[in-house]
Amino acid sequence: MIDNPFYSHEFHGDYDLVSIGRLELEEGGVIPDCRLAVATFGTLNEAKDNAILVTTWYSGTHQIWRDAYIGPDHALNPDEYFIVVIDQIGSGLSTSPHNAPDEISMSKFPRVRIGDDVVAQERLLREHFGIETLQLVVGGSMGAQQTYEWAVRFPEKVLRAAPIAGTAQNTPHDFLYTKALVDTITCDPGWNGGEYASNTEVVDGLTRHAGIWAVMGFSTEFWKQEVWRALDFDSKEAFLAGFLEPYFTAMDPNDLLCMAWKWQRGDVARHTGGDLDAALGRITARTFVMPIDEDMFFPVRDCRAEQEKIKTSELRVVEDVLGHLGLFAVAPTYMPQIDAHLAELLGTRV
Amino acid sequence: MIDNPFYSHEFHGDYDLVSIGRLELEEGGVIPDCRLAVATFGTLNEAKDNAILVTTWYSGTHQIWRDAYIGPDHALNPDEYFIVVIDQIGSGLSTSPHNAPDEISMSKFPRVRIGDDVVAQERLLREHFGIETLQLVVGGSMGAQQTYEWAVRFPEKVLRAAPIAGTAQNTPHDFLYTKALVDTITCDPGWNGGEYASNTEVVDGLTRHAGIWAVMGFSTEFWKQEVWRALDFDSKEAFLAGFLEPYFTAMDPNDLLCMAWKWQRGDVARHTGGDLDAALGRITARTFVMPIDEDMFFPVRDCRAEQEKIKTSELRVVEDVLGHLGLFAVAPTYMPQIDAHLAELLGTRV
Repeated sequence: MIDNPFYSHEFHGDYDLVSIGRLELEEGGVIPDCRLAVATFGTLNEAKDNAILVTTWYSGTHQIWRDAYIGPDHALNPDEYFIVVIDQIGSGLSTSPHNAPDEISMSKFPRVRIGDDVVAQERLLREHFGIETLQLVVGGSMGAQQTYEWAVRFPEKVLRAAPIAGTAQNTPHDFLYTKALVDTITCDPGWNGGEYASNTEVVDGLTRHAGIWAVMGFSTEFWKQEVWRALDFDSKEAFLAGFLEPYFTAMDPNDLLCMAWKWQRGDVARHTGGDLDAALGRITARTFVMPIDEDMFFPVRDCRAEQEKIKTSELRVVEDVLGHLGLFAVAPTYMPQIDAHLAELLGTRV
Repeated sequence: MIDNPFYSHEFHGDYDLVSIGRLELEEGGVIPDCRLAVATFGTLNEAKDNAILVTTWYSGTHQIWRDAYIGPDHALNPDEYFIVVIDQIGSGLSTSPHNAPDEISMSKFPRVRIGDDVVAQERLLREHFGIETLQLVVGGSMGAQQTYEWAVRFPEKVLRAAPIAGTAQNTPHDFLYTKALVDTITCDPGWNGGEYASNTEVVDGLTRHAGIWAVMGFSTEFWKQEVWRALDFDSKEAFLAGFLEPYFTAMDPNDLLCMAWKWQRGDVARHTGGDLDAALGRITARTFVMPIDEDMFFPVRDCRAEQEKIKTSELRVVEDVLGHLGLFAVAPTYMPQIDAHLAELLGTRV
């Protein structure tokens, strides 16, 4: 367990740490006392049927959802819904390699799968809030993986689903991309097999990590059009040094690796012996599949191929020159699209 | 200077090493005795007006052109043309960091630009062969950069040009992509600031290098469709371990870095004070701009934007699910497209 000030209320605002007790994991490991960081917005009604679950992406937490996606001016409106954002295991806020008790900390942290997160989230919602059904599950990227997992694993609980910029079954290209991300960290001598004393010892690896995100996280056109100028940077180098690199170097390497391992293996077809059609065929949620048109690693066609296997679904392509990291909601044209799609989805009777 | 058996006649067949003497470089350095590896096919006619120049890409040499692109069944037909393939500086066969004399070897090797290569090639063609005009300059990727440089720098000498899967002005995204490639090598302690005793000391870095190529060199669809099965591999891991990794680990790290630096800075607008329109406006060669539709880092739209600035040009998009590394001419549908375009281009009166 090491101290990293980034994973704090100072940087992430209000959230609660809720213990769901012992979590046995798909890969055979155990988290003896699994704690999930939970941020809620709005009020759970008496019928407990106005809840929305938001799942989080790689390196992201409830913070970006609170700051950009949730509010009275958005489809995710806390005046109407009880919105629960649960930070994923390994996020650095929930139980993660860097903050786990010694017996499972750092290099000893067990392998976690997307399914483990969803099991943990379901337990938390049921036992802590008494929530049995969700009006909507929505998440981007790894959050989309969790969204699909929810819709396949608990079809009776998920009325609507909105996987944004992610897939139900991780693609081989995505596996290789994530491997390149992993390699940037694990090849750093400072990582030391996961037994560093501070993330600052892995700053070179984390900086290279940011460099790979620069290549794939944004689109070729983002760089060509110098869209970063809108964020008040003078050069792409300044944008990297002032935005993307500090974003990642603040984080914990083992936490990122925990999430990366999970990301690489996201696959709802694990429920159906590898049959993706059968797995997606289980979904009964009204589903809007929402890829981003300029996404370099979750291309629209991959998302469309999955959408076409979901009976109750529609494809809603989000246009954003930022590409995958359009998820940061930086482009002024991004949130209006997200809000329009989610509002329509939430307005659909199910 | 270190011995690397990969850069030999055993692996690269017939070629001549031709000295063009002292080469003063754009960045201020000097190669005292610049030697270019040259492979020729066909016979130069008496008028010396049937020559075609082929330029080489990053990590590639004349070998792939000889094996896949040149022959009596191809547009690049040695029965009609005298085809000269010149391996770029830093290729490992021409003067390169690993084979240069001690005074400029390894970490002391000077910075080389695309323009330096083209100056060297023009001198070689003129002084060694007496060639003053070229029926065609053709090259892929970094070879396309050289092709554009030829057409802008020596417009009167280039009758036709075919830049395949490359750009005249390197894009910012491409710069960042190449930086990620560079980082895989330079972060390897075995690289040792460029002063290793053998490329085998940098095998980890070179393996990661291959890993980044896997992510960007092929398309997402290449991996999804498991196109590597056509190459008799059983898994993507076996394909990486049996093809892409040995391809790069055989090479010299400093040579790759020399080419990468050059690639990052390719820009014909250096001739016109940064004005790309003016630079491309100089081109008089009949030009077919030939991007590959699934290329992840030289996307069609970037190539089209340049093509539209060339008066005497047409856009000819090559379809290949392999993406950028379609250049390897593995797909049976690839060469017929290349041949058709080049045959039509060569058949055009100029």
